[in-house]
Amino acid sequence: MQVQPDRFLQDLHTLRSFGASGVGKGVVRPAFSDPDVAARTWLFDQLAAASLAPHVDPAGNVFGLADEPSILLGSHSDTQTEGGWLDGALGVIAALEIARAAKETGGPPVSIVNFQDEEGRFGVLTGSSIYSGKTTLAEADTFTDVNGVSFREARSAMADLTGELIPHAQFTGFIELHIEQGSTLDEAGEAIGVVTDIVGSRQLQVTLTGQQNHAGTTLMHQRKDAFQALSAFNTAINDRLRNIVTPRTVWTIGRVHLRPNAPSIVPGEVVFDVQWRDVDDDRLARMETLIRDLVSGIAEEHGMTAEIVPIKALQPVPMDATLRAALCAGAEAQASGKWREMPSGALHDASNMACLMPAAMVFVPSIGGISHDFAEDTNEADLIIGLRVLADAVSRLS
Amino acid sequence: MQVQPDRFLQDLHTLRSFGASGVGKGVVRPAFSDPDVAARTWLFDQLAAASLAPHVDPAGNVFGLADEPSILLGSHSDTQTEGGWLDGALGVIAALEIARAAKETGGPPVSIVNFQDEEGRFGVLTGSSIYSGKTTLAEADTFTDVNGVSFREARSAMADLTGELIPHAQFTGFIELHIEQGSTLDEAGEAIGVVTDIVGSRQLQVTLTGQQNHAGTTLMHQRKDAFQALSAFNTAINDRLRNIVTPRTVWTIGRVHLRPNAPSIVPGEVVFDVQWRDVDDDRLARMETLIRDLVSGIAEEHGMTAEIVPIKALQPVPMDATLRAALCAGAEAQASGKWREMPSGALHDASNMACLMPAAMVFVPSIGGISHDFAEDTNEADLIIGLRVLADAVSRLS
Repeated sequence: MQVQPDRFLQDLHTLRSFGASGVGKGVVRPAFSDPDVAARTWLFDQLAAASLAPHVDPAGNVFGLADEPSILLGSHSDTQTEGGWLDGALGVIAALEIARAAKETGGPPVSIVNFQDEEGRFGVLTGSSIYSGKTTLAEADTFTDVNGVSFREARSAMADLTGELIPHAQFTGFIELHIEQGSTLDEAGEAIGVVTDIVGSRQLQVTLTGQQNHAGTTLMHQRKDAFQALSAFNTAINDRLRNIVTPRTVWTIGRVHLRPNAPSIVPGEVVFDVQWRDVDDDRLARMETLIRDLVSGIAEEHGMTAEIVPIKALQPVPMDATLRAALCAGAEAQASGKWREMPSGALHDASNMACLMPAAMVFVPSIGGISHDFAEDTNEADLIIGLRVLADAVSRLS
Repeated sequence: MQVQPDRFLQDLHTLRSFGASGVGKGVVRPAFSDPDVAARTWLFDQLAAASLAPHVDPAGNVFGLADEPSILLGSHSDTQTEGGWLDGALGVIAALEIARAAKETGGPPVSIVNFQDEEGRFGVLTGSSIYSGKTTLAEADTFTDVNGVSFREARSAMADLTGELIPHAQFTGFIELHIEQGSTLDEAGEAIGVVTDIVGSRQLQVTLTGQQNHAGTTLMHQRKDAFQALSAFNTAINDRLRNIVTPRTVWTIGRVHLRPNAPSIVPGEVVFDVQWRDVDDDRLARMETLIRDLVSGIAEEHGMTAEIVPIKALQPVPMDATLRAALCAGAEAQASGKWREMPSGALHDASNMACLMPAAMVFVPSIGGISHDFAEDTNEADLIIGLRVLADAVSRLS
C-alpha cells in the first residue's frame, strides 16, 4: 500500500482547526465540546468519502469499518482543557490515511476508531472502557464533569449519528500510534518507540494526624507537626525504594493538603497522595508493602495516627508479541537504528483493547517531552516516520 | 490592697457568657461582633460602678481611668473565631478587680484597659497599634475582615460611647496578665511565668519553580519536582538550624501550596512560608541568612528558580527591668518555688505598649498548652495566684 504523507499532514492540520487555541498549535477540544463534536462529524464525512463505512456508537466512539473483519487502528481526538494538536489525534489521522490508502492501493482491509473521552472529562478512558465492557453505558451515564454536566447529557450532542456498539469480532487486533509524552526518544535522537508494556499504577491517599498548635508557644520537642512527618516519610521512601526499583519505575507525591495551612500554626494534619508506576505488578506490590510499612513507622515515630485509603490499582498490560514483532520490523525498515522498545508510562485506550484482542502501541517523539500543553509538538518528519512504520506493520501482518 | 478572688472569678464567668459557644467553656467573640460590643458595654458599666472613669477611644479600646497618672493593667477581651474563655479576658478582669480593690481598700491608683482586636479580625493587635501610634486610625479604617467588612464600618457599632484617644502620659507603665498558651508551666507544675522578652519573629514566603510534568512518562532523573525540593529544604534546614538555636527557638513550615496539586502530575511549583521566632534579634538574622542560603543552594541543586518574599520581621521586645523585678518578687511571695522567668513565644499588646512606656507581662498555665480553642482552660486556683501576683507587684511598685 502507498500512504500519502502530504494528505496525512493536511488532515492533521485540518483536525487541529477544530478547537484551535490560538496559542502555538494548541487545541481545546474536550470530549463532546462543540469543537469535539464538529471534529468527529468531520471525520465521519472523511470516512464516508473513503468508503470506510462510518459508524458512531452510543459512547461517541467513531469507527470507519472495512468490509470484512480486519485490524483496527486508532486512538482518540478529544483533548485536555489545554491540549496539544497531536496527542491521540495523530493516531486517528494516521489510521484514516492507512485505511484509505489500503483501500485505494490494494492493501489489506483496515478499520479505524476514534475513541471518546480518553482524557477523562467524565471518567478514565471512558469511550474505550464502554467499548471493552469494563464500564456499562448506564454507569457512564451517571459520570459528571467538574461543572456537573453528565455523560448522558453530553453524549446527546451526537444522538442523530448514533448507532449500536460494534461487535468485538469485527476486529483481529488493535494498534495505537501516539506521541510518547515523555522525553526518552527526543533525548536519544530516536524516531520510534515500540511499546513493550503499558505500566501499571497504584495510588494511596494517606492522612497523618498529629496536633495543631500555636507556632510561637509550642516548642520544637512538644510538636506533632504533620508536615514534618510527611517530609520525613518522603526522605525515607526515596531511600528505601531505590533498592527495589528500575530506572523506569516512577513514584510521585503530587497532591498535599495541610490543615489548617496557615503560617503561624503548627499543622495538625496532612493528606497526601503517593502514586507509583511500573511494568511489573510484583514490584508494584512490593512498593506498596514498603510504603504502607513506612507510613506506620513514621506515624509511630512522630506520635501520629495514620489512615491509608487505596485510590487505584491498575495492573500492567503487556503488548501482544505478534503485533510488537511487526512494529519492530516496520521500525527497523523505516528508521533503522533510530528506534527502541520501551514501556508506556502513561495509560492509553490500548490498555482496554488488550482485554478484547491482541493490542500494541507505537510512539513518536515529543519535543522536550512536553504534552497536555499548548506547546506540545513533534517534528513533521517524525510524524511521517510514525505513519510509515504503522503502515509497514499492517502490511506485514496481512 | 485586698483583692476579692470570688468577685474576680464571678466577673470572669459573667464575661464568658458574652459569646459563650455552648462547647465547654468556649467563646466566640471576635472584635466588634455583637457579643464583643455587649461585653465591652458591660465592662464600661462595671467601671462606672467602681468609679473608674470609663472611656472608649476611637479604636474601641475601653479604659477605666484612675484620677491621676497611674500604672495601667489590662489585655483584650476579643477572641478568635473559636476561642477560649481566658486568653486576654483574664488580664482584663484581673485589672478590673485590682483597680476596684485598690480604690476600695486604699491601694495605689490603678487604671485598666481592654484593647480591641488583639486577635486580628482586621489587622495585627489593631487596638494597641492604633493606641501606640504604629497604625493611624485612617489606615486601620481601610482594614477589612475575611468577609470584606471594614474596621471603619465595624467600629461604628460603638460610636455612641466613643471619645478621644487617651494621652500616653496618663500612664506610668503597663502590665499584662495572660494565659501562657504553651505547655511549659503546665508540664513543670508551676503557677507563674514572669515574661523576660516577647520573642521576635520573621517570615519568608518562598516560591520554588521547577517543571510540571506527567507523573507516568517523566522518569525520576528527568524531573524538576517542586515538592521534592521543598522536602530536601526542610530536611537540610532542620539539620543546619540545630547548630545555632536554643531549646526555645522555634521554626515552622505551616503553609504549603503545590501547583497544580494533582496526584498524576509532577508538581512544577511550590509556594511555602517559613517562619521562625526567638528572643535574640541577631539569632533571627543568622537564621535568615542560613535559610536564604539554603533556598538558593536547593534551587541550584534541583534545577529550579527561587523567589523569596519577606512577609514580616518583628524585633524581640525585652520587658522592663523594674516591672519584671516587682513581678518576680510578687511571684516569690505568692507562689514560692512554683514560678519561673520565661520568654513569650506569642505576640501580645504589651509589645506595642513597650514602645510607649515600661511594660511587662505575667503568665498563668494553660492546661495541656491549649489555646485558641474551645478547650482552653486554667485551674481556678492558678487564676487566683495570677491575680494575687499582679496585685502584689502593683503594691510593690507604688
